[in-house]
Amino acid sequence: MFGNTQQGLLVVLSAPSGCGKDTVLSELDNRLEIRRSVSMTTRAIRPQETDGVDYYFVDEPYFLKMLAEDKILEYTSYSGHYYGTPRQAVDEWLRAGETVVLKIEVEGAENVRRLYPDSISIFLVPPSMHVLEERLRKRSSESEEEIQSRMTIARSEMQHATQYDYIVVNDRLDDAVSDIRAIIRSERHKTSRCGNIISEVIHHAES
Amino acid sequence: MFGNTQQGLLVVLSAPSGCGKDTVLSELDNRLEIRRSVSMTTRAIRPQETDGVDYYFVDEPYFLKMLAEDKILEYTSYSGHYYGTPRQAVDEWLRAGETVVLKIEVEGAENVRRLYPDSISIFLVPPSMHVLEERLRKRSSESEEEIQSRMTIARSEMQHATQYDYIVVNDRLDDAVSDIRAIIRSERHKTSRCGNIISEVIHHAES
Repeated sequence: MFGNTQQGLLVVLSAPSGCGKDTVLSELDNRLEIRRSVSMTTRAIRPQETDGVDYYFVDEPYFLKMLAEDKILEYTSYSGHYYGTPRQAVDEWLRAGETVVLKIEVEGAENVRRLYPDSISIFLVPPSMHVLEERLRKRSSESEEEIQSRMTIARSEMQHATQYDYIVVNDRLDDAVSDIRAIIRSERHKTSRCGNIISEVIHHAES
Repeated sequence: MFGNTQQGLLVVLSAPSGCGKDTVLSELDNRLEIRRSVSMTTRAIRPQETDGVDYYFVDEPYFLKMLAEDKILEYTSYSGHYYGTPRQAVDEWLRAGETVVLKIEVEGAENVRRLYPDSISIFLVPPSMHVLEERLRKRSSESEEEIQSRMTIARSEMQHATQYDYIVVNDRLDDAVSDIRAIIRSERHKTSRCGNIISEVIHHAES
């Protein structure tokens, strides 16, 4: 009954590659009313991908124009391509009181924290680095060199975990999803987010 | 797998009288592994009460001796009787990594916050003051004067709600219980409480 008077909740989710971030997000999507921001990229679309679902695929001049107009709230470049989060949809969803989940890299997360001080951040970790390496191998889409490179990046990303508000271990998928749902539900009850409930409750008495 | 290396979680729960605090606590008890502290009081035991379950019933000299020895972590006096929370059990449960819930008044809550800075506090509110008054009337154990006196106290207690970390509206019992369970689950994942997970995850890789 009080939900609609509140600003939405912005949730930043980061994890080393291979940690099951996308599976966790799909499950969250199925079980909970969340909005997932679709990133914009300048890299080429791959056969199994859909424009507007996996990414918005745009050319570099368009991306740079959006950036110049402050319409991208965080971005990174990787292998010569840009990846960024369009700002407009996020702001509209938040104004409508919705829960918006952004899947972003550690550098991007710092930027979001600065721009949206009320946002919360969750770092998803594997149960062990050994399990992470096994999971990367199972995808079998990558060479040994690529796997080792991802492991090096993962170790370095893990060092940023303590900058996040919450740490969730993705050992069993169901547990990790339930943990994140609990975090989102819990944050909705933070006094800083719902302090006006008190005056509403008292006000009702007089009316 | 990491739970046992952590310190437990101390949860302070306060609410105006008639808000359903005891029902919520019983439900939490049934569905979740929590420890409920039993208060100590100098008032006389009532027919339907059990010593050691509802309260520890003690005489005033014993209570004052415990207080002098710093063995009571918060206390209050009401209608000439003392009510306090014995410290030893709480500290032992916390050392054992358990979740301990203390049902206490707003003044006591401030004390606990000072003594246990890692504790969290939840304020339970009725959906409206009108509903609270109805609930008090339904108990029908109190005179009109007592009901009005409780309403006045409730309004004054509500002013303290914003000093709490979380606010939960007890409209539907099931929702309120689920909210509190989510808060407890979520707090377990706060980076400040589980920062050592990162070194454990990385360490596992090397072993």
